[in-house]
This record gives sequence, structure tokens and C-alpha cells, in this order.
Amino acid sequence: MLLISMTIAKAFAPSHITGFFVPVMRERAVESGSLGAGVCLEDGVVAEVALQDETRVTMEGEPFRSAPLVDALLELTSEPLWVDLHLDAPLGAGFGASGASILAALSAANHMLGLSLTCNEIATMAHRAEVVGRTGLGDVAAQVTGGVVLRIKEGIPPHGRVVHIPTKSVPVSWACFGEISTAAVLENVAVRKRILRAGRSCLKKLLDRPTLENFMLESRRFTEEVGLAGESVVDAIETAEASGVVAAQAMLGDTVFAIGENLFSEFENSGTSQINHTGVVLLK
Amino acid sequence: MLLISMTIAKAFAPSHITGFFVPVMRERAVESGSLGAGVCLEDGVVAEVALQDETRVTMEGEPFRSAPLVDALLELTSEPLWVDLHLDAPLGAGFGASGASILAALSAANHMLGLSLTCNEIATMAHRAEVVGRTGLGDVAAQVTGGVVLRIKEGIPPHGRVVHIPTKSVPVSWACFGEISTAAVLENVAVRKRILRAGRSCLKKLLDRPTLENFMLESRRFTEEVGLAGESVVDAIETAEASGVVAAQAMLGDTVFAIGENLFSEFENSGTSQINHTGVVLLK
Repeated sequence: MLLISMTIAKAFAPSHITGFFVPVMRERAVESGSLGAGVCLEDGVVAEVALQDETRVTMEGEPFRSAPLVDALLELTSEPLWVDLHLDAPLGAGFGASGASILAALSAANHMLGLSLTCNEIATMAHRAEVVGRTGLGDVAAQVTGGVVLRIKEGIPPHGRVVHIPTKSVPVSWACFGEISTAAVLENVAVRKRILRAGRSCLKKLLDRPTLENFMLESRRFTEEVGLAGESVVDAIETAEASGVVAAQAMLGDTVFAIGENLFSEFENSGTSQINHTGVVLLK
Repeated sequence: MLLISMTIAKAFAPSHITGFFVPVMRERAVESGSLGAGVCLEDGVVAEVALQDETRVTMEGEPFRSAPLVDALLELTSEPLWVDLHLDAPLGAGFGASGASILAALSAANHMLGLSLTCNEIATMAHRAEVVGRTGLGDVAAQVTGGVVLRIKEGIPPHGRVVHIPTKSVPVSWACFGEISTAAVLENVAVRKRILRAGRSCLKKLLDRPTLENFMLESRRFTEEVGLAGESVVDAIETAEASGVVAAQAMLGDTVFAIGENLFSEFENSGTSQINHTGVVLLK
């Protein structure tokens, strides 16, 4: 591997677990996205960026395919860039790793190349890449600010609109049992119908009383009503419930989550992460 | 002092140094405020809230007069509350301590009383109290998110609009030489005219190339063009400049600030604080 320059920029973006959502697709990507609610976590993505002989993406140094990320980089600049990703949360499991990767990579590249884009311009570019690539609909809108985010108008701000639920830095536990293809789920007409109906109802009820507790209750209701949870997720939710903890499925992933420390440590692929309140930030 | 309840909620809000601004007053307070740019700091205000026999505010336990804060508390609830403030930055010196106090106190009270307001609703209430009380015009809009904030439409979001400049967690140094009355400055017609002209020009130029470096350059230009800096601030700016550092006046305070560590440590009332990226957060 021939490095043309030293690594000179590094950025972090939080992962984002969606509790419930309503996809809304329009002609323009910045006006498309989803309504819904989710929580950002300190575990996320760190992207290191360096100039190199061609644009390519690696994860911990190994080649990594991410068409939306490469598209976004090429939209940002004609300079060939090497992006190396470090992920603290699982891929394809409902953590918004794709959105976090694009947001972190674009932020680092913007800084390294002195392009002077604002956070909002970077977020718009990242959201567009996600919507066009069908890798995410609402993660970027949340990951740019952090916290517990309600997306009350679809798209990226200022087209979209978000509000935040005030929360302490509490821990969120999760366990991941596999991957789910977001695109495949959204193509199923019957599932789509259930998602639209349940998602709208959950958002309405959460807006009536926006608290972290109600975010978890509405997320669990969404999990039940859309019926996308596999056996392992259902088992984990019931086990948590037996000890008085409200758990739900991360949308869309074969993953369970709940507020609290080490709630799912019996499972192989599990972890705990504090709620993140910074959103995307430059590290170097 | 008779405590009816234990202290059961605590929140933090960052201080906010404004580099330049344009006041814009309209009939409705949520649509009033200022255009401009500023930076949020880790040094800020912690508010502890407890139920008590009457609504009152103290600072480190000593009685403290803050009409806008009391007004905001009475708008939030009819419950009598005791709010104790802890400030890491000077008062009346251009750190937005008033806005931070209201934001932190309302957030803690909202949590303690289970009122379930969103961050945005709390910010709207805090902004309104500041505008009506003439204690601040743009601090709250920045302090709710943290970071380096450009206020590109006056008022509190979603009426107002902000964009963020991506920045690392760099240190900001300051030195404070006294107090300035915001209200008295804004009542001077000639000064107001200079502020409007310089502020609009600085915002336009910073939006052309929104970087932290340019934020400091435009802030210094604003300092020069509005001519509100006292002798001490002018001296400190020139001393910094002699060693290659761009310094400016904190608006509105008899205070100088610049990017870097311990730049003004020769002065009695000085300090250094990292840029804050969380905005207002609950602590307990």
C-alpha cells in the first residue's frame, strides 16, 4: 500500500439505532427520508482520510465495498482519497453504520482538503448518498446532532425537521443476531403497509409525551406491529421484559436494544454504549 | 434555608461567545433575535433544581437576581422551585451566561417535574425570556446544540436557522476586564447603525468560506468596525496579534478571546476552555 500523504484528518460519527420509522420517498433525495425516532450512541465510526493515488475505502486496512460512500466522496472532490474506517458497532444490523461512515469520511475529507463546507452541507451530501443508494433513510439526520432524535418531517434539515428529547448520558445495551437487508424489507408491499401505519401511530403517540421511556415503549409497539423480529430478537425482548426492562428491535436489523448496562451480555455479539450528544465531530 | 425536597435534577449548558451579530427585533419574540456567529465553550453553567416553598434563584447558595430566569420558570410551571447556579465563566462579560442559566435551569426543571418538553420547546421558552428581558438575542439558539454556530436567520429554530462549522475540540482563551450593558449599547443609534452594517458584512463573508479561522478574522473585523472595545481589550488584541494570533472582542462584553491555550494568562481574570459540542445536557 503506497501512501502518497500522511493521514491528516480523522472524524467520528455516532451510530444510530432507529426504534420506529415511516419511509417517505419523493423526487428529490434531500426531501426524501423517513419520519421516526432513534438514539445515537458513543460507539460509532471513526474515518481516517489521506490523499492517495486512487479513491478507495478500507476497514481497518482491509478492502471494503461501499458504493454510497465512494459516490459521496466523488461528489465532494475530484481528489483521489483513501478512507480507512474503524467501526465500534456491527454492520448491517440497524446501527446506521453506513450513514455514520459517510458522515465521518466526508467531514474528515472536507477538513483535510480545506473545502470549508458546513456540517449541514456535509450532512446533505451524506443523506443524498444514503437515499440514492438505499442504505438508509433517517440515520444521517440524527447522526449530525446526536442525542435522542425525533424526525418529524422527512429529509435532511432544513428540508427535514428534527426535535430532541432531553436525556442524561445513560447506557444502551444491544445484542445482534445477524443482518437484515433494508431494501428487501421495504420492497414487500404488505410489510410496507404495516410499517407506514404503525410508524405514524408511534410518532404521534411519542410526540404527545416525548420521553426516553415512551421512546422505548413506542419502539416495542412498532416491533410487535410490523412483525419483522426473528426468533432470537423476540426471545431477547421477552427475557428483558421478564426482568422489567422494555426492549425493542433495532430498525432494520436482526438486533435487540434497551436502556441499561450489560442487559444482553449472555449473547455472543452484544455490547453497551452511552448515548452520544455531540453528533459528528472532527478528531484530527 | 428549608429544603422541601432533595435536589433531584441537574443540567449543564455551555457558555457562548459571540464574535459578531446583527440584532433583529420583530413583534414575536421567537422570530426576534440576531444573525451572527459565535462559539460554545465547555465552561458554562450547571443548574441544580429542587422543589421548595417559593421560586427563587441562588448562585452557589447566595441569593441571585435574574428576572428572565424567574419569568421562564414561572412560564414552565406553577410549582415553586429553587434553582442554584454554578458558573464557570464570568457574568455580564459576553459569555451568554444568562442564556445558559435559563437553558440549564429549564432543562433540569423539565426533567424533575416530568413535563416531557423537547429540547426545542425548552429552547423556545429560554429564547423568549432572553429577548423579552433584553439579556440576549442569539445565545440560546447556539447553546442548545453547541459547536461553532452561524445564525443565518434570526430567532429560535425552527423560526430561526443555524448552520455549524465543523471543528475539532480546540481550546479558546479569554480575558475579561469588566462588564458591558448590552441594553445600553443597543440603545445608542450610531452604534446600532455600525453594528448592523458590520454584522451583515461579516456574516456574508463568513458564509462564503465558513471556517474557524475566518470566524476569528471576521470577528476581529467586527471589533474594529463597531469600535466598542475598551483600552484593555484593544491592548490584548494587539499583543495577541504581535505573536501571530487573531483575537477579537466577545460581543457584548469587556472581554477578549482567541483560539489557543493560555493566551491571556498574564491577566487576572482569564481562562481557557475547549469548544463544547453537546449543547445543553441533563446531568442528573
